[in-house]
Amino acid sequence: MIAGASGNAVPLTVTPLAQPPVTAAPVALTMGDPAGIGLEIALKAWLQRAHHELTPFCFYGNAGSLRARAAAFKLDVPVTVVDDPRDASAVFARALPVREIALAAPAVAGEPSSGHAAAIISAISNAVADARAGLVRAVVTNPISKTVLYEAGFKYPGHTEYLAHLAANEWPGGSYHPVMMLAGGGLKVVPLTIHVPLKDVPALLTRDLIIATVRILTDALHRDFGISRPRIAVAGLNPHAGEAGAIGIEDRDIIAPAIAALAAEGFDITGPLPADTLFHASARQTYDAALCMYHDQALIPVKTLAFDSGVNVTLGLPFVRTSPDHGTAFDIAKQGVASPLSLVEALRLASTMSQRRALLPV
Amino acid sequence: MIAGASGNAVPLTVTPLAQPPVTAAPVALTMGDPAGIGLEIALKAWLQRAHHELTPFCFYGNAGSLRARAAAFKLDVPVTVVDDPRDASAVFARALPVREIALAAPAVAGEPSSGHAAAIISAISNAVADARAGLVRAVVTNPISKTVLYEAGFKYPGHTEYLAHLAANEWPGGSYHPVMMLAGGGLKVVPLTIHVPLKDVPALLTRDLIIATVRILTDALHRDFGISRPRIAVAGLNPHAGEAGAIGIEDRDIIAPAIAALAAEGFDITGPLPADTLFHASARQTYDAALCMYHDQALIPVKTLAFDSGVNVTLGLPFVRTSPDHGTAFDIAKQGVASPLSLVEALRLASTMSQRRALLPV
Repeated sequence: MIAGASGNAVPLTVTPLAQPPVTAAPVALTMGDPAGIGLEIALKAWLQRAHHELTPFCFYGNAGSLRARAAAFKLDVPVTVVDDPRDASAVFARALPVREIALAAPAVAGEPSSGHAAAIISAISNAVADARAGLVRAVVTNPISKTVLYEAGFKYPGHTEYLAHLAANEWPGGSYHPVMMLAGGGLKVVPLTIHVPLKDVPALLTRDLIIATVRILTDALHRDFGISRPRIAVAGLNPHAGEAGAIGIEDRDIIAPAIAALAAEGFDITGPLPADTLFHASARQTYDAALCMYHDQALIPVKTLAFDSGVNVTLGLPFVRTSPDHGTAFDIAKQGVASPLSLVEALRLASTMSQRRALLPV
Repeated sequence: MIAGASGNAVPLTVTPLAQPPVTAAPVALTMGDPAGIGLEIALKAWLQRAHHELTPFCFYGNAGSLRARAAAFKLDVPVTVVDDPRDASAVFARALPVREIALAAPAVAGEPSSGHAAAIISAISNAVADARAGLVRAVVTNPISKTVLYEAGFKYPGHTEYLAHLAANEWPGGSYHPVMMLAGGGLKVVPLTIHVPLKDVPALLTRDLIIATVRILTDALHRDFGISRPRIAVAGLNPHAGEAGAIGIEDRDIIAPAIAALAAEGFDITGPLPADTLFHASARQTYDAALCMYHDQALIPVKTLAFDSGVNVTLGLPFVRTSPDHGTAFDIAKQGVASPLSLVEALRLASTMSQRRALLPV
């Protein structure tokens, strides 16, 4: 519970974990598409484990491919297969622990193959099952290619929807509404709508969607980021947040009433605010996260400020999930030049979030 | 003429000036709404003239109001009325030169009045007339309030449209397409559409509008910014620039063909590019200006990076015009706390642009 502005208690809709995570457990890192840069950045992240003070992580993927990639790029990384991911924490200081996933065909950097689809999917489902069993504390996912998976019959629009499906299977009775958050450069932003044409955005904005998203966001900032009373800023849809209806009606008729309803419940929420003046240095001090109405409105500021180190976080799932904020990068996967920075930040954030979540009473 | 990629010469559509500006002439600074912060920031800019190496400017407004505001805020600024703006350059070192505009009623900070409308408009029209006569080198406009002017019968949607009307009157036979550019933080951005509801943006994008805007932008970067072969980056409308039609068709069907047509003419132009990855530090090195599809897409990055020092530039007029990137700020006009930084940058940029334009052969 957090105290509302009115002094009333505001119930948080936190989904209790079936069992508290074992904080000594490692973070699960899925291999992603083995033809992309996922293997390379996992190896490089392990090499930088001391510098970035990484807590142990366990790679869910194919040890043979990992060793081959390490040899190809002259990365001196011992790779050790573990049977129980909890053993990873002891191994981590001297080797990169791997929960083995068999590959049907050898992985070649830069050459994606639908033959890898089953293993890519299996890495994800195994990591989620182990999170459910308390064997790992969080799940970090390396990038996948939807094209590769679709060719093999994968039927989810993306990574996140598949994770929500796994969550519903593993935590029966729950219904999960994943919310994407980008964190970086001192900003946390949530796009209310994501991969939809801009012309469809206005019709997708509803009072209910805004309210549900703010609840999930506030819960997560409280539970996983340790913010006692999260402050949410909401960007307007139209220029100047619509100027009271003079430039578009959605800010006045949809966004403002949703904010008023949430404020009346005790949420610390402001808006709709003109998006262009919401992200400069002093404005960023006035809120903990910004809810934006569409993809570019949210991603432009965070990627302008933190292009290489942004982290993608999925809120609203019964486990902690983060991912690097980039794709498979097949085009550079042969070169050995990929930066592990976003993955490192994703591993660090997953560790911190799961630690904070475990400290809360269940 | 600038050389095209193909080696063909690309004709620039520069409107020749009737006479070259006298570069010793001052910059004209209009008073804007005298109940706002315009008088205060003009006084403060003059006080900081040496620090910012400002070339002389002449205030178009009411000397009495300026003296009263200086006294109220204890700003030690001598004010001298000049009959010919060219005298301002000699006066500027010791006093703020003023081209006198009578006010029908005293100006009170924070109390806008439609009684000021005639003088506000007269300051603008006099500055443009003097630019036409070569008596001033550029026009910098302090903020106005459309509400105040509308009450007095002003019939233009805004400052810029009124300036285009004055331009057509003063430079007969010309037809002017004003293009708004924001400059700051190492970025120059142009919103293709401006103060329209977001839902109307997709239908407003046309191949002709993109082509006309890029021509004006390229001309201005060449003529007024001294860039021999301007590089233009064009942002996509949809997330990920539409992913070849998977997320919206406008990038593929409207923006890409316009870019192809311009590239075939020899323009150095790329896009449509995903807007979220277009504005980080290394991306900014790859172009001289970014053409964006709508208000927030253009203004979010520039205001995130340079909130206090952004400058609004109007391209496509037969004279140089800049303005500070903020409004009248009636709410703080009584307090004496307004920052002159954006006005200072607007004055500096207007001076530099007019200097460069004068150096080009007419």
